[in-house]
Amino acid sequence: LSILLFNDNSPVEHLSPLDRGLAYGDGVFETILAVNGELIWWSEHWQRLISGAQRLGITSPSEQLIYQAALQLAGVKRCVIKVILTRGVGGRGYAPTAGSVSTIVSMHPAPEILKSPVKIRWCQTPISQQPALAGLKHLNRLENVVARSEWQDEVFFEGLMSDLSDNVICATSANLFIYSKQRWLTPSLNLSGICGLTRQWLLDNIGNISVEPICHSDVENADAIFLCNSVRGMMEVSHLESLALPKTSFFNEINMKFLNRNPAFLTE
Amino acid sequence: LSILLFNDNSPVEHLSPLDRGLAYGDGVFETILAVNGELIWWSEHWQRLISGAQRLGITSPSEQLIYQAALQLAGVKRCVIKVILTRGVGGRGYAPTAGSVSTIVSMHPAPEILKSPVKIRWCQTPISQQPALAGLKHLNRLENVVARSEWQDEVFFEGLMSDLSDNVICATSANLFIYSKQRWLTPSLNLSGICGLTRQWLLDNIGNISVEPICHSDVENADAIFLCNSVRGMMEVSHLESLALPKTSFFNEINMKFLNRNPAFLTE
Repeated sequence: LSILLFNDNSPVEHLSPLDRGLAYGDGVFETILAVNGELIWWSEHWQRLISGAQRLGITSPSEQLIYQAALQLAGVKRCVIKVILTRGVGGRGYAPTAGSVSTIVSMHPAPEILKSPVKIRWCQTPISQQPALAGLKHLNRLENVVARSEWQDEVFFEGLMSDLSDNVICATSANLFIYSKQRWLTPSLNLSGICGLTRQWLLDNIGNISVEPICHSDVENADAIFLCNSVRGMMEVSHLESLALPKTSFFNEINMKFLNRNPAFLTE
Repeated sequence: LSILLFNDNSPVEHLSPLDRGLAYGDGVFETILAVNGELIWWSEHWQRLISGAQRLGITSPSEQLIYQAALQLAGVKRCVIKVILTRGVGGRGYAPTAGSVSTIVSMHPAPEILKSPVKIRWCQTPISQQPALAGLKHLNRLENVVARSEWQDEVFFEGLMSDLSDNVICATSANLFIYSKQRWLTPSLNLSGICGLTRQWLLDNIGNISVEPICHSDVENADAIFLCNSVRGMMEVSHLESLALPKTSFFNEINMKFLNRNPAFLTE
């Protein structure tokens, strides 16, 4: 058993091929780390899911129902639970209809644990500026797919995406932090990108992190770089293409603070 | 019977809820007018579908198979056949996998026939600039959904979308043409929008149409405006919000040329 489907708050057998999630990417999703049957940051994931849905005018299902479904699937030591919420079936045409929403809860293997800092690259595929959708973890992820398809080798763990105005926004599936001029910076996400939960935790709990536009040269001249997302936690970057980052303690300091408060991400 | 599903070239019963079309909008689609069992512009639709798929690195199914499926569903006087092609099931993660593609062929009612020219409005929701996807009829259509949700009344038939640089690109589900300075203009689609088949037919068959950037004031000062798509054909605009367009023969002239060569769009 690895997938549970709901139409509003009722279990269903199959996803309709007329679902607006497929037709238009008309929905939002979350990917949640589960460790020993515990759903890490469930409340934060749920809040982001329903606030994203509200922003799109999509009704929310019962939290209790979806939480129980997620728990039911999370019965291995370490896995990822994905929750997709769509506007459901609504005919042909962009105008949103007040139909029943669809929720898809599925279980996936946890990603392999990183043994060492990662090498990253620049993506050529730009990330689009769209203030109407910026920050949302919505289902329109084709530009991430195209960016991620730029490389197949295993040398590079991730790629950084920039908008058409030279703002570096994120990696294909993680937020970006750089240490520069004696402080941590992370890109503003008013026009592009996803407001990640690990990013938000750091902003809420670590002092002196600045949210501001970051350009290519800021990244190339950084004293330290890390990526983060709510499945892998914090990922130190050792190389930006052929550039080796200086050896500093900046990452270890912030990572220790993170792991002390979020031990589920400890992976010894 | 109104939906047929295929996995590569084999019929299947159900769409997987792990399909990348749902997860990421990782696919392309066509909406095809069918009149008395004939699929209008089939070859052009198919070519656009597979060239879009190729641009995304998605394998194409058998044309003969999908054509027969579409024909089988098109057995009413006037309807719309939608064909969705996705990268299929591919686990969790943006990196494209070489799995089996999914094709969904479905039949929908034809839209109501327009009795008179239409009123249109400006959308506040911008259309994003994304050269990596511009022109493609891909499944990431959430910005169209959000734009179309700006109005519910029936006064306005369509809304025009502009990018963040004041370029007017299209309506939520149609291309835009304006008559200005003694010639027809249509927006360039290098950064945004869908290369519509009716737009392309007009560019290929009507002389002296210019493809160039169009700004708000160009539209507001136009002598004539029409929208077009391959389901409805050509749609004359009478009003842009409260602005009544001048009475001219420019639209009728180009529409007659279009209908003479494309009588399927005649709807007396």
